[in-house]
Amino acid sequence: MTVLYKADPVRGAIWAERFARLAPDMPFRVWPDTGDPAAIRYLVAWQPDDLAVTLPNLEVVFSVGAGVDQLDLARIPAHLPVVRMIEPGIVEGMVEYVTEAVLAIHRDLFDYALQQQARVWRALQARPASSCRVGVLGLGMLGAAVLERLRLFGFACAGWSRSPREIEGVECFAGDAALAPFLARTDVLVCLLPLTAATSGMLDKRLFDTLPGGASLVHVGRGPQLVTCDLIDALERGQLHSAVLDVMDTEPLPADHPLWTQPRVRITPHIASATRPETAVDVLLDNLRRHRAGERMIGEIDRARGY
Amino acid sequence: MTVLYKADPVRGAIWAERFARLAPDMPFRVWPDTGDPAAIRYLVAWQPDDLAVTLPNLEVVFSVGAGVDQLDLARIPAHLPVVRMIEPGIVEGMVEYVTEAVLAIHRDLFDYALQQQARVWRALQARPASSCRVGVLGLGMLGAAVLERLRLFGFACAGWSRSPREIEGVECFAGDAALAPFLARTDVLVCLLPLTAATSGMLDKRLFDTLPGGASLVHVGRGPQLVTCDLIDALERGQLHSAVLDVMDTEPLPADHPLWTQPRVRITPHIASATRPETAVDVLLDNLRRHRAGERMIGEIDRARGY
Repeated sequence: MTVLYKADPVRGAIWAERFARLAPDMPFRVWPDTGDPAAIRYLVAWQPDDLAVTLPNLEVVFSVGAGVDQLDLARIPAHLPVVRMIEPGIVEGMVEYVTEAVLAIHRDLFDYALQQQARVWRALQARPASSCRVGVLGLGMLGAAVLERLRLFGFACAGWSRSPREIEGVECFAGDAALAPFLARTDVLVCLLPLTAATSGMLDKRLFDTLPGGASLVHVGRGPQLVTCDLIDALERGQLHSAVLDVMDTEPLPADHPLWTQPRVRITPHIASATRPETAVDVLLDNLRRHRAGERMIGEIDRARGY
Repeated sequence: MTVLYKADPVRGAIWAERFARLAPDMPFRVWPDTGDPAAIRYLVAWQPDDLAVTLPNLEVVFSVGAGVDQLDLARIPAHLPVVRMIEPGIVEGMVEYVTEAVLAIHRDLFDYALQQQARVWRALQARPASSCRVGVLGLGMLGAAVLERLRLFGFACAGWSRSPREIEGVECFAGDAALAPFLARTDVLVCLLPLTAATSGMLDKRLFDTLPGGASLVHVGRGPQLVTCDLIDALERGQLHSAVLDVMDTEPLPADHPLWTQPRVRITPHIASATRPETAVDVLLDNLRRHRAGERMIGEIDRARGY
């Protein structure tokens, strides 16, 4: 009944310490110190490579991250459940990051930063939050938590997801046909979609041009969803006013990339939200208990859908 | 029973329009169109100059702003109540501004901005909100509202005021002797104090040096509370890590001022929060009703204390 961890080793040491304290009877190993492969029942990994195929008695693959797009599902045998990490640390970080970004856009802080560079002291016309229409693409746990916090500020909140959802105080749109009307009413677009074949390249010229002129983007989904040249073009045309980007098609973003110096673009190095070992171990232990009891685990993905 | 308004005329037109709609029987005049001085009972002003002395039948002086420090109380006869503006628009704006500033500091966005300028993609160690100790100077309506919102993010919240207050989930300090212990536990200091003789020049070297090394300042009180050269010195010594400043001793900040180009300093032109005519008129009408009914008005100041 061994758990094998294969991801960042510094964080792995924190996982191991906490795991040993909370579940002293269950061996927890940090790759490459695998021990007897036949003893490993649970794999906790960022990228498992071929381990899911070669470990003979594996029962579950856990992602250390909120997404599973870094996993090659074709290299994980079909009978193995795949579980993504849903834990309070990830949610708290994302709520912080997106709330800050939406408030910064709403309060014209990108324009004030440009004024500061030019040493200009000039007040811009303030608007009430109720006139700022925020729209979140993706209504999973993160999207719902972000909207719940933004509602408190009085923003006009909407969300879009592939299948219908209901969130109190949020205008919910669902399915391909509802995407255009959702975008047309959205001044600040937040992308929190999982990366799938359908969402790859989704943030493109056509999508930007469906937003109202002068809208802004907060991208905290996955890099390949964004068509960078279309984004730069939309900013330069003024169709988009500003962008907060935490993920990139190529990470790290190359030093000579034109995005670094685009006005009204903020770049952070994929730090919006990360799994916190302290809370992640609690969630893992709860899922191990569920698995042994034959219950559905929290975060178990639909492998056909890919998220 | 005429109301005379003497402040920004563009906003005055919005006040007049709304007032006429909600209280059509009560004349509302925008200075300098005063009409018969003897008819004026209520003065709504930013700076009344000598009007409070020269209008023979004046009954109340209302400030259009949340503070009254711009009024020269010595030029307002002692029998006249002075009322500051407490309305939801001011509170909403301040909660937005301070929440954004605290989140930006907590999430290292000033450091990430410097990295972006240097085209560096490097993640910094994230910390949970519970390890970030926010302290608010001034626990009036604005300070309490700001703390209530920040608590939702899990920050370790404290507040300091001259006289004792109690706010749920907030460690409250009161009086001069409690100032140093309050500062010593504060990583992000938010100043929301009224401007009085006691608070003028309060944000100085001694105060900054009582904070933990690497603390940050969010100044949304009044400009003269800040000793600018002490702030620059504390930033350059590393005693302070960053500062968000919405108010200045001299406004507009002169173009040659060294603050404009200080790293990790954000400057906005006194826009954190402003009275919204739409909601302010509702509050004014409620106070006029209270005054005629002999009740205490919302925002009536203690003239001896000065706020």
